[in-house]
Amino acid sequence: MSTPPLASGPEGPHALRPLLTTVLDALHTGGRARGGPLPAGGPDAVAARIREAVADVLPEEGDPDALRRLVHALAEGAADPAHPWCAAHLHCPPLAVAVAADLAASALNPSLDSWDQAPAASELEELVTRALAREVYGETPSGAGPHRRTAPPRGATSHDAPGPDDAPGPDHALGPDHAPAALATTGGTESNQLALLLAREALGAGVRPVCGANAHHSLPRAAWLLGLPEPVTVPAPAGTLDPAALDAALTDLPGPHLVTATAGTTDAGLIDPLPEIAAICSTHGARLHVDAAYGGGLLFSTRHRHKLAGLSAADTVTLDLHKLGWQPVAAGLLAVRDPHDLTALHHHADYLNADDDTEAGLPDLLGRSLRTTRRPDILKTAVTLATLGRTGLGALVDQVCAHAHRLADLVDAHPALELHDRPTLSTVLFRPTGADDDTVAHIRRHLLHQGHAVLGRTRLDGRLWLKATLLNPRTTPDDLAGLLKLVEGTPPP
Amino acid sequence: MSTPPLASGPEGPHALRPLLTTVLDALHTGGRARGGPLPAGGPDAVAARIREAVADVLPEEGDPDALRRLVHALAEGAADPAHPWCAAHLHCPPLAVAVAADLAASALNPSLDSWDQAPAASELEELVTRALAREVYGETPSGAGPHRRTAPPRGATSHDAPGPDDAPGPDHALGPDHAPAALATTGGTESNQLALLLAREALGAGVRPVCGANAHHSLPRAAWLLGLPEPVTVPAPAGTLDPAALDAALTDLPGPHLVTATAGTTDAGLIDPLPEIAAICSTHGARLHVDAAYGGGLLFSTRHRHKLAGLSAADTVTLDLHKLGWQPVAAGLLAVRDPHDLTALHHHADYLNADDDTEAGLPDLLGRSLRTTRRPDILKTAVTLATLGRTGLGALVDQVCAHAHRLADLVDAHPALELHDRPTLSTVLFRPTGADDDTVAHIRRHLLHQGHAVLGRTRLDGRLWLKATLLNPRTTPDDLAGLLKLVEGTPPP
Repeated sequence: MSTPPLASGPEGPHALRPLLTTVLDALHTGGRARGGPLPAGGPDAVAARIREAVADVLPEEGDPDALRRLVHALAEGAADPAHPWCAAHLHCPPLAVAVAADLAASALNPSLDSWDQAPAASELEELVTRALAREVYGETPSGAGPHRRTAPPRGATSHDAPGPDDAPGPDHALGPDHAPAALATTGGTESNQLALLLAREALGAGVRPVCGANAHHSLPRAAWLLGLPEPVTVPAPAGTLDPAALDAALTDLPGPHLVTATAGTTDAGLIDPLPEIAAICSTHGARLHVDAAYGGGLLFSTRHRHKLAGLSAADTVTLDLHKLGWQPVAAGLLAVRDPHDLTALHHHADYLNADDDTEAGLPDLLGRSLRTTRRPDILKTAVTLATLGRTGLGALVDQVCAHAHRLADLVDAHPALELHDRPTLSTVLFRPTGADDDTVAHIRRHLLHQGHAVLGRTRLDGRLWLKATLLNPRTTPDDLAGLLKLVEGTPPP
Repeated sequence: MSTPPLASGPEGPHALRPLLTTVLDALHTGGRARGGPLPAGGPDAVAARIREAVADVLPEEGDPDALRRLVHALAEGAADPAHPWCAAHLHCPPLAVAVAADLAASALNPSLDSWDQAPAASELEELVTRALAREVYGETPSGAGPHRRTAPPRGATSHDAPGPDDAPGPDHALGPDHAPAALATTGGTESNQLALLLAREALGAGVRPVCGANAHHSLPRAAWLLGLPEPVTVPAPAGTLDPAALDAALTDLPGPHLVTATAGTTDAGLIDPLPEIAAICSTHGARLHVDAAYGGGLLFSTRHRHKLAGLSAADTVTLDLHKLGWQPVAAGLLAVRDPHDLTALHHHADYLNADDDTEAGLPDLLGRSLRTTRRPDILKTAVTLATLGRTGLGALVDQVCAHAHRLADLVDAHPALELHDRPTLSTVLFRPTGADDDTVAHIRRHLLHQGHAVLGRTRLDGRLWLKATLLNPRTTPDDLAGLLKLVEGTPPP
């Protein structure tokens, strides 16, 4: 058997060309076989088709048709986020240009743990993450004093004592001295984990996480992972964190505290009152993290950006461009106001960042992530930002927010449907008037099982709601009306 | 401005086609502009070219030429793992078929945190990860008693109390009752983190990690992350963990212990004596993790598989198919002998795995990872396994191991070069006879700066060695001889 072709090297593009044609054809035939937003028949039917397509995971001899066969099966069994009735989750349809760029990352396969595996990609990451940090914090960081110091980085000392050269200063990995920075992550969950980790390293393992009841489930999970106390939950009676309750909690609880606010809740797309929360944190000397995995995309919109007022007061901010940024997964970020916080991630491995190599000018990249080998997910983001510009990206944000208002109007005008509230971002909660929770859950599962629509669910105000998370800029008013017709037409349980 | 096209939906393949042509052309022109294994001129020159290509990360108006421009710049500034003289790290050249498959994952953008975002992809992951776990453990797990129970999952109780239905049993997410399982990860580092986390949850936060001095740097970093004691280091005088020293350490130290052995060290490609280590762990009642991120690929080779004898005795095993598996990053796995260990990762988020949805048959996927949103990296692996078969994949493993022996022969026969030792995997350590460490470090940096070759470095036996990690199956004997000529021809510092 001859050696199969590689993706890079002089022959790479030539070898990829026919294989990509196979993939595009299989995406087309698989999508046509599916026909709707997701496959019909439910989990058992989908699993049976996949088992049939796979047959033997690792056969003795290979099958040259496997690429076509498996991509067809994956496409046939996909929940397609580009279908206007696939609207359950923060699961965006990626832009074609972002997906095309992502191919180059896979083909060249740079790894961002050392310069000699990613000379250009590491510089690109540095440029793009810094620019996105500036979107959050502006050119001049607010509140990050020029020589504000954190507690000694326990991480560095515990497994590799920092030398005298480890004092914060000009650092190739972290960029210019005091400018805010950002780390690329696998998504909002990893960003939130890192935010808690940086707080633990800055304030000690006794730091007490404080979250709204509306915060993402990854916050308590991160606390568990990192060996921190379970977060104290502050009420969010209207879906957003109650500032008075936060003030009371910070008054009562021994510190130090890490408060997490949310800009764009998963359940309802709501934004916590960031300026009030920032002021309360300042009063109590609490550290502030804002989970803007969903809402952070508003930064690109001239029309909606004002809703994020107060964001720049946060010590750390979770962003996630595989939500309101139309990237394929993964495209998470953690923006950090004071780059000195990142010294906690400094890490030494002689084969990747030997001292004499670093002194000789080879950039030290290990402190940019808790991962070691790491693909340049930043490429697709860089290409998207440059291809669309702020105007183009802002227009997409405005479109999906407008769709949400349109859907809310349709629900409001519908005699048999109840609207939870006017949307803040692109999430709309609604339910059949007078239905019980079982009926609401049944409608969602029925539409899933039939392959008709993917809607989400949210429990709020003691009741279960259907959730439409509108992230598809190409959705039309007719699509929205059709979605409501599907809900209306679902037979009772 | 019209809405830019999406990657999926009926129009997706059509929209992608011209963009992919742009990417392939830019990969070609960028690679030609580079000319060698990496760009010449060192970090400053590369950074200047990237800054020029990017100009403005987020311009007001978009530029339709950005895709070509940035992919060209990334390719021109890449360290190309498909070049035979790019041989520093465990940084493999990916197979074209794997990269093509990865495009489908980006285009469809399934997310593996809930069934309704990834109906087919979640089933594919289940099938492929289980098959790979069987490669490690065989059909019948050794030592995993049918009702062996672990400590209560602190993770579950700390933020979501498990109900009576949480007892281990048939579980859609984890597959058939007692069969070994595997989790998909971003790489060996995340796999090692998970291994330590599962040990913490099974044995308590007092578990003491014990590693060889040859273990990967991600082990102490994971202990730090998880709030565990710093690992006790056992000597590895010949590059592999010394069993007698391990026995002494386990005798002296209070338990419970988690021992980590390495199958394929990063520095020298050596395999710890797994059967002896397993026997010692059994005697002392210690839990055993094996980091086989590099060596795990030998499982596919009839010729070399025997070197992994003893692997199946491990409670957990790190695998990483972006090393000896020719996948683009990320392709990590953690194989777990007793799937009950995974109950520690059970996690609840009402919008993703509400109890009534799970009872109604919707698979609960959240316990498969610490990430939430998660792309199906398993697709490219599935396509590679099916396209090449065991025979094809094993042949690639055999080829790179043979290259290492060939290079060792050439070094051995060279009057001015010293060989460290015969290779076990595909890593060869060598140095100019009589050179001091500064000269060895200089040679590596000189070749990097000139753009001539990417070689690694390893400190072993008190001296610095050049490291060639041979992962390119297409490398020829002439390539290997040429690499030694480059080293020989480097002018002194």
